[in-house]
Amino acid sequence: MDVAILGFGFLGKNLVKYLTIRWDELKRIDPNFKVTAIANSKGYIYDSNGIDLFQLSETQDLTSYSKAPFCFEQAATLIEREFFDCVFELTPTNVKNGEPGLSHIRKSLSRGMNVITANKGPLVLAYNELVSLAKTSDCLLLFEATVAGAVPVFSLVRESLQGDKVIRIQGILNGTTNYILSRMYYEGVSFDIALREAQEKGLTERDFAYDIDGIDAACKVVILANAIMGRKAVLSDVKISGIRGINEEAISLAKKSGYAIKLIGEVEKDLRVSPRLVPLNHPLCVNGTLNSVQFICDIAGEITLVGHGSGKETVSALLNDLYTTLRAQAIKS
Amino acid sequence: MDVAILGFGFLGKNLVKYLTIRWDELKRIDPNFKVTAIANSKGYIYDSNGIDLFQLSETQDLTSYSKAPFCFEQAATLIEREFFDCVFELTPTNVKNGEPGLSHIRKSLSRGMNVITANKGPLVLAYNELVSLAKTSDCLLLFEATVAGAVPVFSLVRESLQGDKVIRIQGILNGTTNYILSRMYYEGVSFDIALREAQEKGLTERDFAYDIDGIDAACKVVILANAIMGRKAVLSDVKISGIRGINEEAISLAKKSGYAIKLIGEVEKDLRVSPRLVPLNHPLCVNGTLNSVQFICDIAGEITLVGHGSGKETVSALLNDLYTTLRAQAIKS
Repeated sequence: MDVAILGFGFLGKNLVKYLTIRWDELKRIDPNFKVTAIANSKGYIYDSNGIDLFQLSETQDLTSYSKAPFCFEQAATLIEREFFDCVFELTPTNVKNGEPGLSHIRKSLSRGMNVITANKGPLVLAYNELVSLAKTSDCLLLFEATVAGAVPVFSLVRESLQGDKVIRIQGILNGTTNYILSRMYYEGVSFDIALREAQEKGLTERDFAYDIDGIDAACKVVILANAIMGRKAVLSDVKISGIRGINEEAISLAKKSGYAIKLIGEVEKDLRVSPRLVPLNHPLCVNGTLNSVQFICDIAGEITLVGHGSGKETVSALLNDLYTTLRAQAIKS
Repeated sequence: MDVAILGFGFLGKNLVKYLTIRWDELKRIDPNFKVTAIANSKGYIYDSNGIDLFQLSETQDLTSYSKAPFCFEQAATLIEREFFDCVFELTPTNVKNGEPGLSHIRKSLSRGMNVITANKGPLVLAYNELVSLAKTSDCLLLFEATVAGAVPVFSLVRESLQGDKVIRIQGILNGTTNYILSRMYYEGVSFDIALREAQEKGLTERDFAYDIDGIDAACKVVILANAIMGRKAVLSDVKISGIRGINEEAISLAKKSGYAIKLIGEVEKDLRVSPRLVPLNHPLCVNGTLNSVQFICDIAGEITLVGHGSGKETVSALLNDLYTTLRAQAIKS
């Protein structure tokens, strides 16, 4: 399997690191496994014999890679010219027009290349188009990392709840707001101070409104609705209210009655992101930057998954999608 | 696919019910899908053309089934004589010698029949033997329902954490003791009263010591250790202490410091079941009859699954194993 990694930021670098850690295992599964291209926003390196990930994992820098030249050309050109069995699309999320990720995914799938992505933008804007493109091309489009980071929501439903119908989904889908609300709850600090702490810890997106106004959670609600409930939802279908209005009084009032205030994303008849009172002993009620997702199923009842919604742990989701792709390739051949 | 159901108690009856609810879907997946035998402790009904599950789901009684005679013969004889593509082994758990389940599973696997079981006994006593028998026979041995009921622990690790190494497992693996400890915590009742409540609600095993002395949880620890961590553990490897010694004072002292006392099963270097202090805001700290299992992984970090550990919800696990078996059969043929 020839793999391309588009996007060499935090997630791309950590993916390369963990690929080196799992290198022997990957080679046992597929002796031809290699990463033949890695791109960032400036250009890419390409080597049909495989890039030395161990060197890259040390330097974390594409331009200083010694075994192939850095080519100042767009990733789009690369995937137009070369063939990869699997493309990791890890460029930054853009929910306005999905680019450059959307074009990368469209091009890859239409050329018959499997795609694994952590990029919410293309899925929020064009989920159904991309899924049917993948189907037509007989390719996999896997996106475990787009919702709740390392928490394997899509593979859980696909592989562990095969006999169930999911009736409703609710969850804490944004770690930044959960951090802020947890600090307000446990330390009694104001919203502004908790937000500043989150920023200092590097937990917020560049535009922090994306987190605290609920946009990020709403993107995840759209992907969950489409991928798990078969909807044709777009971002404007989600009724969104964020957490700017939550003050110390509201938190303390909730606390006195055994509740916490959490920003909850919901997929049922309506799609919604809003601050909700959650009983302290409810499985969804997790704290810090943790994410939690609850599936209400017709047979299993409530199944809740909790884990890290962001950070290097998200590589777990990318790797799981990779192993799934390797397995599908082995069955095909 | 020809299916046999051995054991027609609570779980067997609910399985038949949900098979009728999913009937059209199962027939779409495999037009030849049928249940050709159902056995209880007295005998069985067999029809090579398929049993009418809709009739049985109404009457819930094998002897009054109108389309095939009830045969007063042991299930062991049935699986000796007839071939099934998949055998559900749902007879009662027996951790002393595993019977009759152990013989059923051995016989089925050695004759090349896939096995799905909810029966802990055979797995606790002979996990490695049965798994290697399944391998030799090129059969599936699936047992999602044996640990934490509807909570899909094994398929989660197998399908959703493929790139991770599980370093440690801990969890609330027995719903009865969790119910008792939750009642003591929230209502301040004594251990004896909470135990009586649990008995009145039908939550305890016939021998309640099996729950409250931690044996049931220890069985699950053994299965988790063997199936997920590749150990060769037996029940006597587990250091067990139950919850008989937990009194109101201990609970109230824990509560004052923000902890609950939970009976926790652990798989790390040692295997252990014991009452532990769990912070109230820890994802494992769930209440009532809920079960929770946390996997500590080398990439994903902590992934916690919460759900119903017993009851009809457990059929979700049996069905998921059935869909997995149907899929594997489709790939083979």
